[in-house]
Amino acid sequence: MSEEQSTAPKTVTMDEVIGLCRRRGFVFQSSEIYGGINGFFDYGPLGVELRKNIKDAWWQDMVHRRDDVVGVDCSIIMHPKVWQASGHVDGFSDPMVDCKESKMRYRADQLFFAPVIVEGETIGYVSVMEDASMEDEANKKAAEMKRKLGKQGELSPVELKSYDEADPSEYELIPSPATGKPGSLTPPRDFNLMFETNVGAIRNESSVAYLRPETAQGIFAEFRNVVDTGRVKVPFGIAQVGRAFRNEITPRNFIFRSREFEQMELEYFISPDEEEWKTVHREWINWCKEWLQSIGLRPELIGEDVHPEDKLAHYSRACTDLTFRYPFGVQELWGIAARGNFDLTQHQEHSGKSMEYFDEARKEKYIPHVIEPSVGVDRIFLAVLCSAYEIDEIGGDKRTVLKFHPRMAPVKAAILPLVKNKPELVERARGLYEKLQRRFPVFYDASGAIGRRYRRQDEIGTPFCLTVDFDTLEKDNLVTIRDRDTCEQERVTEEEAIARITAAVYGE
Amino acid sequence: MSEEQSTAPKTVTMDEVIGLCRRRGFVFQSSEIYGGINGFFDYGPLGVELRKNIKDAWWQDMVHRRDDVVGVDCSIIMHPKVWQASGHVDGFSDPMVDCKESKMRYRADQLFFAPVIVEGETIGYVSVMEDASMEDEANKKAAEMKRKLGKQGELSPVELKSYDEADPSEYELIPSPATGKPGSLTPPRDFNLMFETNVGAIRNESSVAYLRPETAQGIFAEFRNVVDTGRVKVPFGIAQVGRAFRNEITPRNFIFRSREFEQMELEYFISPDEEEWKTVHREWINWCKEWLQSIGLRPELIGEDVHPEDKLAHYSRACTDLTFRYPFGVQELWGIAARGNFDLTQHQEHSGKSMEYFDEARKEKYIPHVIEPSVGVDRIFLAVLCSAYEIDEIGGDKRTVLKFHPRMAPVKAAILPLVKNKPELVERARGLYEKLQRRFPVFYDASGAIGRRYRRQDEIGTPFCLTVDFDTLEKDNLVTIRDRDTCEQERVTEEEAIARITAAVYGE
Repeated sequence: MSEEQSTAPKTVTMDEVIGLCRRRGFVFQSSEIYGGINGFFDYGPLGVELRKNIKDAWWQDMVHRRDDVVGVDCSIIMHPKVWQASGHVDGFSDPMVDCKESKMRYRADQLFFAPVIVEGETIGYVSVMEDASMEDEANKKAAEMKRKLGKQGELSPVELKSYDEADPSEYELIPSPATGKPGSLTPPRDFNLMFETNVGAIRNESSVAYLRPETAQGIFAEFRNVVDTGRVKVPFGIAQVGRAFRNEITPRNFIFRSREFEQMELEYFISPDEEEWKTVHREWINWCKEWLQSIGLRPELIGEDVHPEDKLAHYSRACTDLTFRYPFGVQELWGIAARGNFDLTQHQEHSGKSMEYFDEARKEKYIPHVIEPSVGVDRIFLAVLCSAYEIDEIGGDKRTVLKFHPRMAPVKAAILPLVKNKPELVERARGLYEKLQRRFPVFYDASGAIGRRYRRQDEIGTPFCLTVDFDTLEKDNLVTIRDRDTCEQERVTEEEAIARITAAVYGE
Repeated sequence: MSEEQSTAPKTVTMDEVIGLCRRRGFVFQSSEIYGGINGFFDYGPLGVELRKNIKDAWWQDMVHRRDDVVGVDCSIIMHPKVWQASGHVDGFSDPMVDCKESKMRYRADQLFFAPVIVEGETIGYVSVMEDASMEDEANKKAAEMKRKLGKQGELSPVELKSYDEADPSEYELIPSPATGKPGSLTPPRDFNLMFETNVGAIRNESSVAYLRPETAQGIFAEFRNVVDTGRVKVPFGIAQVGRAFRNEITPRNFIFRSREFEQMELEYFISPDEEEWKTVHREWINWCKEWLQSIGLRPELIGEDVHPEDKLAHYSRACTDLTFRYPFGVQELWGIAARGNFDLTQHQEHSGKSMEYFDEARKEKYIPHVIEPSVGVDRIFLAVLCSAYEIDEIGGDKRTVLKFHPRMAPVKAAILPLVKNKPELVERARGLYEKLQRRFPVFYDASGAIGRRYRRQDEIGTPFCLTVDFDTLEKDNLVTIRDRDTCEQERVTEEEAIARITAAVYGE
């Protein structure tokens, strides 16, 4: 294998990741015993720990270890006016198209089509869903159509256009991806992605409320209170971690695009200075990228996607996505947006409450601008898993191993007595286990051959295994510490083992 | 003051607690800038830390430090059949009564009434809301009525009955608490407390889903998956922390009864042995009580309320509440229920999936029974605040102090340079601050007189203040560590200061 190949992205498949998640209790489909509910997931015993590690690491690094960021924890259901002010009630929608025959539903901006042109004559249309290889697929379909119709001559390469940009005269002509035949697709219509509910016993227009589609607006709604009570000074940030909900038309790619998810958002408030935002924006992009690497994402899978200026929302000054190369393609992981002061201005207008801040250093009053780094816990979860997943060979045997950063690993160490029928040995192992258990999640496993026990831990990404054996008791008073990645083993004192694990987990 | 008086519960008022929460950024009303939304709250910079400390301590003690408990994290929106199986769709309701005149709405089981009887003759009715002093209030109202009507003779002491137990003939006669006059109250009707929404683009009966009213059912729904993937053996527990929602008719008492709240629930699965559940139930009651004390709840404010057998649900074997003496009365804090195997049996029936467990030790198959300790984060939050709140005198000055257990304190230590205009002193203080910041949330404060800075920290419950002064630099190389509760100060090395704070926080 050449040097280049060995650093190229591994080709872990979604099937492998989903299989491992299911098998080892990381992620289950929600309500599986009732046939599941589309777009919702449950995290099992190991998943809940990985998720917690991601959130805790983010909070520690973004809030506790910074002087200039504080946190909030807002309710999921807020006053509906919040969503009027933010523009979500009017504008937070996706264009939806139905296939009347198959009852399938598509996002019109993810459904693409093209006329099939043979020697200048349009002989029909092809349609494909957004996908890594959609151009190839459309060309294949077009060639197939040409062959079926027995048409001679040159076929124009297809140029895809999204269904929401179609001319109304084309709606009847574009085939449904479900049936392959035209005539069953409806025109696109806007579908608001916010889940609605009613608060209070009366169900009418005045009791309508929404499940938040993002955590950011809670931060803006509490900006005034935080400034008034928190002794913060611009520039400063407010962070929030919490659930958000979007009634996605087509949830897909496992936990990547689900209807209920968890966000980690931060609004970093700055002055309206024309130059400052560019510097701060760049700082946040760099810091977020660095952070992703610090928790174990492989650098070669991380990219940057700068949104072109003409695609930005009118209030947005710039937006850069940190992307990740998932098995299903390169996708947005972390959006870092320079949003001007649009949101605070909207809330000031709709609430009548001043969002102005008096800057003592600059001796001026203004509505602060923001840089907004916004990331999904579930998307990081999936990226961490994909980065860590490896299949290698140990002593001629294939093994599946999750090479988690120790800070991310759900179990930090496994304590393994060599045999389980020797009381002194078991007692010694239990003693070590209990010492470690005071500090972090550890696992005690006494059953099965030692090699099998190692494999079980490798597959869930436990960075260290500690073995207590006869030599521990009778000879050297040492334990064996085994490294998950190198499989190397070393004899050390218990104190040394604890110190090494602690250092690996806490980075000290 | 006698010995007895000095240990009697302090009389912190709700106004004091709410005032401090608002003033120092613990808790705000949700969407305050839009006039608020009844029954929803936001946690500010200090509140989010206290909340996190409660949840982290619970998770660490109930999951990480136990061999027999694992966690899950389920979606808030689950398949609606979960709630049919659990009985919530049919039965999770409160009886509601409306006052047609005032448009006020009451829970019929919290609205009490009595006939006013003078010398055997009923001269009218009085009504009162559930409250610590409702009997007194009703008697006062009855006497007032007697006086107004000029009736002579003896007044029978009132015997209160709840409105949902009223005879239909009485509905017209009972006065509304809002207006004091009869004739405006409706008969009680059942009101389901689950928030409803619709999943997917079509809004009809088949798309109805609910926001979970408790986290427990997620645990039951994942029981099978956890057993199949988790290497757990009965007896074992599954824990979950997460948001839950109840469309309360009358949210009240600040964050005690809100519409969106956070639960920490645990299902501890045991065999159907007729004796075992009693022992395990008692163990959990004791352990939960001990845990509450370990995080700083004052023992004299904690009580036990054993539900009488004739008030238990048909499937319930026993239920004991740990209560807390809040400023508004003694209320349920932590319910520890022995629920038999009702829930798993229901899910087996409704899903057709087996919930049976094969017990290798007992060589038998059964559907496990459960002990369910269930507590609200927000209720513990309020109890921690009420326990910690004190007003004492320091050097003749009154101070407000929150005597949080160090594990609960939002800020673990404040680092205070004596003056801010001496660079070496500031540099030294910043160095100490940055060392501590790697470990936990700390606060750096250089502005104002030192006494005022201490008071600010006392009021938010920071257990330690470290002062760097001229002696530190020029004489002894030591810093002053000040204890929040005793106000005693001591000169120690930086290492000693860090070790003391770490020990206090982590209990090592």
